[in-house]
Amino acid sequence: MNKNISQDAYAAAGVDIKAGQEAVRRMRNHVRTARTKGVLGDLGAFGGLFLLPTGYSQPVLVSSTDGVGTKVMLAAGMNRYDTVGQDLVNHCVNDILVQGACPLFFMDYFATGKLNPLVAEQIVKGLAKACRENQCALLGGETAEMPGVYHGEDFDLAGTIVGMVEKKSVIDGQRIRPGDVLLGLPSSGLHTNGYSLVRRILFQQKGYNLQTFIPELSLGLGDELLKVHRSYLAVIQSLLKKIRVKGLAHLTGGGWLENIPRILPSDCQALVEQGSWPILPIFNYLQEKGRLDETTMYRTFNMGIGMVIVVARSEADQAVQAVKALREPVYQVGEIVKGSKCVRLV
Amino acid sequence: MNKNISQDAYAAAGVDIKAGQEAVRRMRNHVRTARTKGVLGDLGAFGGLFLLPTGYSQPVLVSSTDGVGTKVMLAAGMNRYDTVGQDLVNHCVNDILVQGACPLFFMDYFATGKLNPLVAEQIVKGLAKACRENQCALLGGETAEMPGVYHGEDFDLAGTIVGMVEKKSVIDGQRIRPGDVLLGLPSSGLHTNGYSLVRRILFQQKGYNLQTFIPELSLGLGDELLKVHRSYLAVIQSLLKKIRVKGLAHLTGGGWLENIPRILPSDCQALVEQGSWPILPIFNYLQEKGRLDETTMYRTFNMGIGMVIVVARSEADQAVQAVKALREPVYQVGEIVKGSKCVRLV
Repeated sequence: MNKNISQDAYAAAGVDIKAGQEAVRRMRNHVRTARTKGVLGDLGAFGGLFLLPTGYSQPVLVSSTDGVGTKVMLAAGMNRYDTVGQDLVNHCVNDILVQGACPLFFMDYFATGKLNPLVAEQIVKGLAKACRENQCALLGGETAEMPGVYHGEDFDLAGTIVGMVEKKSVIDGQRIRPGDVLLGLPSSGLHTNGYSLVRRILFQQKGYNLQTFIPELSLGLGDELLKVHRSYLAVIQSLLKKIRVKGLAHLTGGGWLENIPRILPSDCQALVEQGSWPILPIFNYLQEKGRLDETTMYRTFNMGIGMVIVVARSEADQAVQAVKALREPVYQVGEIVKGSKCVRLV
Repeated sequence: MNKNISQDAYAAAGVDIKAGQEAVRRMRNHVRTARTKGVLGDLGAFGGLFLLPTGYSQPVLVSSTDGVGTKVMLAAGMNRYDTVGQDLVNHCVNDILVQGACPLFFMDYFATGKLNPLVAEQIVKGLAKACRENQCALLGGETAEMPGVYHGEDFDLAGTIVGMVEKKSVIDGQRIRPGDVLLGLPSSGLHTNGYSLVRRILFQQKGYNLQTFIPELSLGLGDELLKVHRSYLAVIQSLLKKIRVKGLAHLTGGGWLENIPRILPSDCQALVEQGSWPILPIFNYLQEKGRLDETTMYRTFNMGIGMVIVVARSEADQAVQAVKALREPVYQVGEIVKGSKCVRLV
């Protein structure tokens, strides 16, 4: 992570070496809690080393890079930095899970204008917590102090996950057919997309702030908007052992209308039955306050469902039972019909 | 990469969907030039898929995440965006090469306040060029428009590389012994570190700008400072076939004094013989203009050597010949003696 360079000259240039060292010291203990058996060596090497698990005949690596978008600004506003770390890892876990991959390791990138070691520690604490929950190693990362690019303690947070799947088990939606059923797993809230729009509606147009209590939500805005992006790893892994899952779509940026088509064959469309799942109050609230039409809502937000699962109709009941056996809610939210790789709300 | 969300509402919030689509279109053609045989599927999936090469008995993945620091500001100042893409890939390639790994794939993260599709294209063009040169796939990435975090067209660029090495071939410096020899491969210039300090000295203190012509360098400052970070992959791969390389250190942030100790056993120190290689003019120039002492210089900059190789004395001549056979310069820059995991300049 951060390296130690000449203190005096660099301090004058706005790069605080002591803060860097303190940040590394604080982060190190959290990173160590997120080792898995594949990790070789310790921190401080040029690259992180990970011994591949054995027993795969045609192992495929699956990788995704993402950030948490302008949710970082809300974290700063609430002075609560651990949850964006969790958001980032869970987001990335879901992005490779939809292709059938289990996470191996995660690498983070944290950049700021002025390194606050306490902030860096909280972020890495959140990353490590989510890595542990997803049996994923926090293998390494980069902490950069970049005065001039970032202003003051402004920061950005991004990361890359690497997972693995047997080639014949890659889930790509190719076997989706008319008649298949869409199941939905609930989201916890906005997850990690739509925040620039949300900030504009609630803070700029309405003049609210993070402390504003919203009766419809029974919660302050900051608490609502920082709810942690859910990981679907445990539920989907359990389901994959019992059911032939034909397709999985992670409803992130682009919402329902952009993400579901990514897994549809060219001759299929998805009919999504509105009202078949409980829309979280935050979405009704945003729609009303922002006067957003339905298309905008479904093209931007998850509307209360973070993961869509496509299964054969003959296996739908069994899939629902398998999820409910984990005490997790699941809804039948639509079906596949003939069409042209799109979503229709009905 | 960038996803398509509701244009009107989002445009008002400072996120330009059309620019995102144009950026994706422009980037896509470059990304496609950097496919390798391991890449499965096409762009647009949630994660990138990479089929692992076969023939390894205990394959170890090696991964590194890095940014290019405030060199991004100079790229913007020169309106020249492809070279920072090359810097980033080459930097990451070198960071895993020092542990003996060959690159498999690269993932990028590009974030900005206002997405300029032409800038995004140039950056990805540079990433793709360097990926091709390093036989590395540009497997995926994230392009984020984050008004509020980044101001105007300010941007940051980071990336993650994943490579592979046979476990028994991991290079970790453990076999370095007193009597071993340090060889050095030349750098092209500053590579990607020290830029905040350089900007302070040359732009703030001296009042120069990127167009200032510097007779000592026979070059304008912008051209000098944007010189591309070299990749040492070809030279080191060739050397590894002929010589037992005991240790490799990539001289990045922290320069000689911080990077060489990372690979030394606890009972060894490195004697670095000043004058044994040509110091690039930019470093003498910076030392003079910034009145920096020698320790600061060697703790911050590469001084003209970007990669240090440790070999047994008995193999040093053969190693030098092997590099020279590639028409690449190489210098014997020091030796290993008993000591305590540090560097001494002599």
